[in-house]
Amino acid sequence: MPQTFPVTVYYEDTDMGGIVYHANYLKFIERARSTWVAELGVDQLKLKVEGVIFVVRRIESDFLAPAILGDQLTVTTETESQSNARWVLRQCVLKGSEKLFEALVTVVAMTPQGRPTRLPAELRAQLDV
Amino acid sequence: MPQTFPVTVYYEDTDMGGIVYHANYLKFIERARSTWVAELGVDQLKLKVEGVIFVVRRIESDFLAPAILGDQLTVTTETESQSNARWVLRQCVLKGSEKLFEALVTVVAMTPQGRPTRLPAELRAQLDV
Amino acid sequence: MPQTFPVTVYYEDTDMGGIVYHANYLKFIERARSTWVAELGVDQLKLKVEGVIFVVRRIESDFLAPAILGDQLTVTTETESQSNARWVLRQCVLKGSEKLFEALVTVVAMTPQGRPTRLPAELRAQLDV
Amino acid sequence: MPQTFPVTVYYEDTDMGGIVYHANYLKFIERARSTWVAELGVDQLKLKVEGVIFVVRRIESDFLAPAILGDQLTVTTETESQSNARWVLRQCVLKGSEKLFEALVTVVAMTPQGRPTRLPAELRAQLDV
Repeated sequence: MPQTFPVTVYYEDTDMGGIVYHANYLKFIERARSTWVAELGVDQLKLKVEGVIFVVRRIESDFLAPAILGDQLTVTTETESQSNARWVLRQCVLKGSEKLFEALVTVVAMTPQGRPTRLPAELRAQLDV
Repeated sequence: MPQTFPVTVYYEDTDMGGIVYHANYLKFIERARSTWVAELGVDQLKLKVEGVIFVVRRIESDFLAPAILGDQLTVTTETESQSNARWVLRQCVLKGSEKLFEALVTVVAMTPQGRPTRLPAELRAQLDV
Repeated sequence: MPQTFPVTVYYEDTDMGGIVYHANYLKFIERARSTWVAELGVDQLKLKVEGVIFVVRRIESDFLAPAILGDQLTVTTETESQSNARWVLRQCVLKGSEKLFEALVTVVAMTPQGRPTRLPAELRAQLDV
Repeated sequence: MPQTFPVTVYYEDTDMGGIVYHANYLKFIERARSTWVAELGVDQLKLKVEGVIFVVRRIESDFLAPAILGDQLTVTTETESQSNARWVLRQCVLKGSEKLFEALVTVVAMTPQGRPTRLPAELRAQLDV
């Protein structure tokens, strides 16, 4: 079952079209990923000190329907596939049962010098189902 | 030849990783699209009054290498394909000759009520090459 | 007693200094204001249709201490003074009991044409204590 | 004479009110400050490695008139006062000759540990007029 994460739409999220500015959906789903990673016991600040950072490598995103000020949205996040070095997640933004946005997100682990490295062991252990 | 558009990286664009926050590339390429559309003679404010807005429908984005504070980047934009109702653009963000980001962006025209409509005639005429 | 509103710090809020980018505190306190206004029974979308929008006229802001990724912050909001046309709020951002940010915010009501108008009656009634 | 810096308003800058979201003026003036500092020969990335970062301590901001999509704005920046540890700037955002926004910004220099330190010598030398 996907993890769920609530997002409320504020003024800052809207644009002159009266709806959520498209790039902000990427922020919404990043909040959900960070929260999920934290819930899995991964401390991103500690990891950074240890020399591992998560980097978004690819996002395929479909903008299906608009959201407006005050909307109470839900981000769903689930693992699509996972290897030692690569984590692919499917993330949706829903308004009630209506899907507004869907993305396939590829995350990799890197050293601060930008070299690929293995995903943290805690994460692999948790996800390896 | 693709249209080119300059972007400078400011503090607001960076995150705690010391690099440009991934979602901000979508802002960079949107600036380039808006500028190109204006150069083609399309006035988005006038269009909105006439009941046509551009909506991003899909973005496939690859994050290839990081950018940092002060970087002078170039966004290149070119038409990949175009129909009456749909415009697909390939947009890249370059640092010198190095490609940092690449996206395939599908834009559609809609009425304020959210129904698909034809792209503005000026735009179709300009792009129809 | 001031209204309180929770804010979590995400990647999008940080900058290359490793802390929350200063301008984002204005977003945090705007979320708290919008939420408070909604709790007072004021529907900003309905108001807009009726021709009244809230506009921030002045903000005096003090940046006292930094916040970092994952911080659970609290925004406190209380009325400092209020007239028919002008609402002055004091808003703080706290981390536990430590004050990180403080602002004095002046909000006015305007017509879509940019002329000052009276604050909505519901709001004046609620605030008139 | 104040330094001038151009800003164009893009979709990302607007909100559902159809105008520039208020907090974004703080981004506009930060771009101008960073550019001015760079023009004065101060390299913020080098400074950071040397253990000095600029921190905004206080901003008094007046929002005087709105800006809309496509507006070509000018940020003016000049020193209001300056000491060894503190730099106060007056910054305005203009549309033609109309002032849309004005701010008094206090910047201090700090160590990465958050202790106040002296402004970089290059900067003091340049500003000490």
